Amino acid sequence: WFAIATAVQAQSDPLPSWNDTAPKKAIVTFVERVTKEGSPDFVPAPARIAVFDNDGTLWTEHPMYTQLVFALDRVKTMAKDHPEWKDKQPFKAVLEGDLKALAAAGEKGLVDLIMTTHAGMTDDQFATIVTEWLAKARDPRFKRPYTELVYQPMLELLAYLRANGFKTFIVSGGGIEFMRPWSESVYGVPPDQVVGSSIKTEFFMRDGVPVLLRLPQVNFVDDKAGKPVGINAHIGQRPIAAVGNSDGDLQMLQWTTLGASTPRFGMIIHHTDAEREYAYDRDTDFGRLDEALAIAPINGWTVVDMKSDWKEIFPHK
Amino acid sequence: WFAIATAVQAQSDPLPSWNDTAPKKAIVTFVERVTKEGSPDFVPAPARIAVFDNDGTLWTEHPMYTQLVFALDRVKTMAKDHPEWKDKQPFKAVLEGDLKALAAAGEKGLVDLIMTTHAGMTDDQFATIVTEWLAKARDPRFKRPYTELVYQPMLELLAYLRANGFKTFIVSGGGIEFMRPWSESVYGVPPDQVVGSSIKTEFFMRDGVPVLLRLPQVNFVDDKAGKPVGINAHIGQRPIAAVGNSDGDLQMLQWTTLGASTPRFGMIIHHTDAEREYAYDRDTDFGRLDEALAIAPINGWTVVDMKSDWKEIFPHK
Ligand SMILES: [Ca+2]
Ligand SMILES: [Ca+2]
Repeated sequence: WFAIATAVQAQSDPLPSWNDTAPKKAIVTFVERVTKEGSPDFVPAPARIAVFDNDGTLWTEHPMYTQLVFALDRVKTMAKDHPEWKDKQPFKAVLEGDLKALAAAGEKGLVDLIMTTHAGMTDDQFATIVTEWLAKARDPRFKRPYTELVYQPMLELLAYLRANGFKTFIVSGGGIEFMRPWSESVYGVPPDQVVGSSIKTEFFMRDGVPVLLRLPQVNFVDDKAGKPVGINAHIGQRPIAAVGNSDGDLQMLQWTTLGASTPRFGMIIHHTDAEREYAYDRDTDFGRLDEALAIAPINGWTVVDMKSDWKEIFPHK
Repeated sequence: WFAIATAVQAQSDPLPSWNDTAPKKAIVTFVERVTKEGSPDFVPAPARIAVFDNDGTLWTEHPMYTQLVFALDRVKTMAKDHPEWKDKQPFKAVLEGDLKALAAAGEKGLVDLIMTTHAGMTDDQFATIVTEWLAKARDPRFKRPYTELVYQPMLELLAYLRANGFKTFIVSGGGIEFMRPWSESVYGVPPDQVVGSSIKTEFFMRDGVPVLLRLPQVNFVDDKAGKPVGINAHIGQRPIAAVGNSDGDLQMLQWTTLGASTPRFGMIIHHTDAEREYAYDRDTDFGRLDEALAIAPINGWTVVDMKSDWKEIFPHK
């Protein structure tokens, strides 16, 4: 029976939520090329590094980044200890739900919001705050926890790569400590395989107990040309596969796929499905995709059309 | 025969270069406690994180750090393209072998040396320079490549922890990119599990080829209170075991072992063997051990006396 079981297993589809269109074929062809021992394209397992953007690549980023929803919710929760906020921007805008005033506060306003809601506590306290928020928060359109608004085809791709000896990493413009509390349970990616933007931390002993305090200072922005820098800092070798969804992933895709001597795989998730999720590319504040989409065919990057290439969007309840 | 083979395997000693003294017993007791399912001290595999300092903990750091030997050698190699160095400190001191003048150049002189020898090339080029240097360089006392002056008992400890579901990381004050080219082959630690000091890098496209250029600017110093910060940045969870050899590891040992709800293991390698290696603690420029040694018994940290606890120092040729 062993031979039969193996044969059945080999025939079972590891990517059932992908339609039998070009992207699925491109994925399987690439994985078979680099894992076939003795082939000139063979890549040994320690070099099988795959990197994934998070917002819009692994989970939904519309109508706004989930981490921004979190920050706005935190302002509302923290407001009872900050009566001064009802007269102070950008907090006033958040408390009054005035998105126009919030937008007018610009990047500085956004950094103020992030620092106020993400710093001033220990790393353990922040992880607890994130975990408790995710347990309760629900997306208003889909009425589901944000950690269920992950893409089923991408969960299958992560698992398929790992089953073929790949080490899978998240490389996100989002906050590294915002993702780590749930990356293992949701994506199967352990905390040390998460790369992201960060604020500074400081270590000291407080009453005999070691503390890592989160400081309101930007440490690293893991976006655009920062992504290859973050990949090098955390992973220390060039990936052979990269998946993203916006111009923020352009340099990560270049770093992964161009000028290399072994086969490489680059993929862009194009949001084309307003009915089942969202449709956007050039004209959006969250996940703008323009230059990377234009250059994809020239660089041999696979573009996923969510509407026609994905059978399912989210995991079944 | 399967039962017999298993029994033989279970009885074979995973730490043969360790004498049957207290440190070996402490190691085995800790590992058995945290890996015994159903026990109140059980720690699930994803949380079995062990961190190791490098210089003086995994390999020899006397008469000076190997990376400093590398930097001095690089100055000599690069001098033919820099005729001005014969009149310019600290380069003049290096070229003339004048260690007194080199010491007089102080920390600024050292940073100059490091930046000159470690920056200005791509990350790939630097990895090649390190690899080629290590292949040729020999320690003057032991007449062996530096990567053979690693501690056999520590290689066994790394392997023993991994065999028990631990993920092993290097957390060194040394340069992260100086260790990564050889950490996997020498220690079994892949590049993404190496944490260390770093300089800044910059990504750009050059003639259609992606490049990461190493810049002459300090990015992060992974020493003392920087070690818990580096651990948090790269690993994202608190280790349950830490091994170091100097006061530079004090905060890493505190962060790992103090105020925790599950069993923790802290260990200090004390260099006591002038005959087989070196003997030093309070009075040395490389690997000063004072405060951490004094506080070890109070914090329950195991101190390894190299002379009496280790059967072997280096791997056999
Ligand atoms: Ca994205
Ligand atoms: Ca050390």
